[in-house]
Amino acid sequence: MPKRTSHEDSACPVARPLDLLGDGWTLLIVRDAFDGLRRFGQFQKSLGLAKNILSTRLANLVAHGVFELAPAADGSPYQEYVLTEKGRALFPVVTALRQWGERYSFADGEPRARLVVRADGAPIAPVEVRATDGRVLGPDDTAVLLP
Amino acid sequence: MPKRTSHEDSACPVARPLDLLGDGWTLLIVRDAFDGLRRFGQFQKSLGLAKNILSTRLANLVAHGVFELAPAADGSPYQEYVLTEKGRALFPVVTALRQWGERYSFADGEPRARLVVRADGAPIAPVEVRATDGRVLGPDDTAVLLP
Repeated sequence: MPKRTSHEDSACPVARPLDLLGDGWTLLIVRDAFDGLRRFGQFQKSLGLAKNILSTRLANLVAHGVFELAPAADGSPYQEYVLTEKGRALFPVVTALRQWGERYSFADGEPRARLVVRADGAPIAPVEVRATDGRVLGPDDTAVLLP
Repeated sequence: MPKRTSHEDSACPVARPLDLLGDGWTLLIVRDAFDGLRRFGQFQKSLGLAKNILSTRLANLVAHGVFELAPAADGSPYQEYVLTEKGRALFPVVTALRQWGERYSFADGEPRARLVVRADGAPIAPVEVRATDGRVLGPDDTAVLLP
């Protein structure tokens, strides 16, 4: 693997979060938390990740304020990893990635997990980039202004 | 670095794309392409990435159909990397990540790059997850159905 370079001095808001999120696992831990998982053992079982690697990832996510540690809701001696507001704000990122995967990483008809509206099982609309007036924007409709 | 495990057999559409996108650089190459960059040297200058690493990343993105190679638009002997429809479909992913970075990876007032509507410089609306009737959904409003 190439040596990781930090993006912490970048003026680009796409780059900076990748120091934390830009690996093959971290967004899956967040995905699992959206699915209701809260305990180390639950994440470990879901991800099949070595304990030391999961432990490092979770500690890093706590250090960056994506999760906070909380006593177990059922009074047992376990600690639980609970998404903060910052962590919950990753929902559009994870869902946009999910929809891209649905479209491009599966063959037609291939079985896959489906995100639905909890109340009625209805599908989710495509996540889109919009202007403040609601117009859908593509990459050619936008520009990046450097600071 | 831990050995990378492939998610190619996962039934989760969040997981599968991370084999390609889950590193600290690939989404930045795509971001640069959204900003209009097309040539190896342009990406290299923008990212400050070692040539061999950039070369591997770009070849992988071409192999996965995110970029296609095209003759230089100006008739010069360079090849250009042009986003395919699959690549352009990453715009909501990159923009959702950008907005999360804007909110959580910068201090108040800290200079940063800004994505705006090209035509009039207006800001972009927050990328949101919605039901097909337009309601905004949070993680608690949704559920994942396994295949």
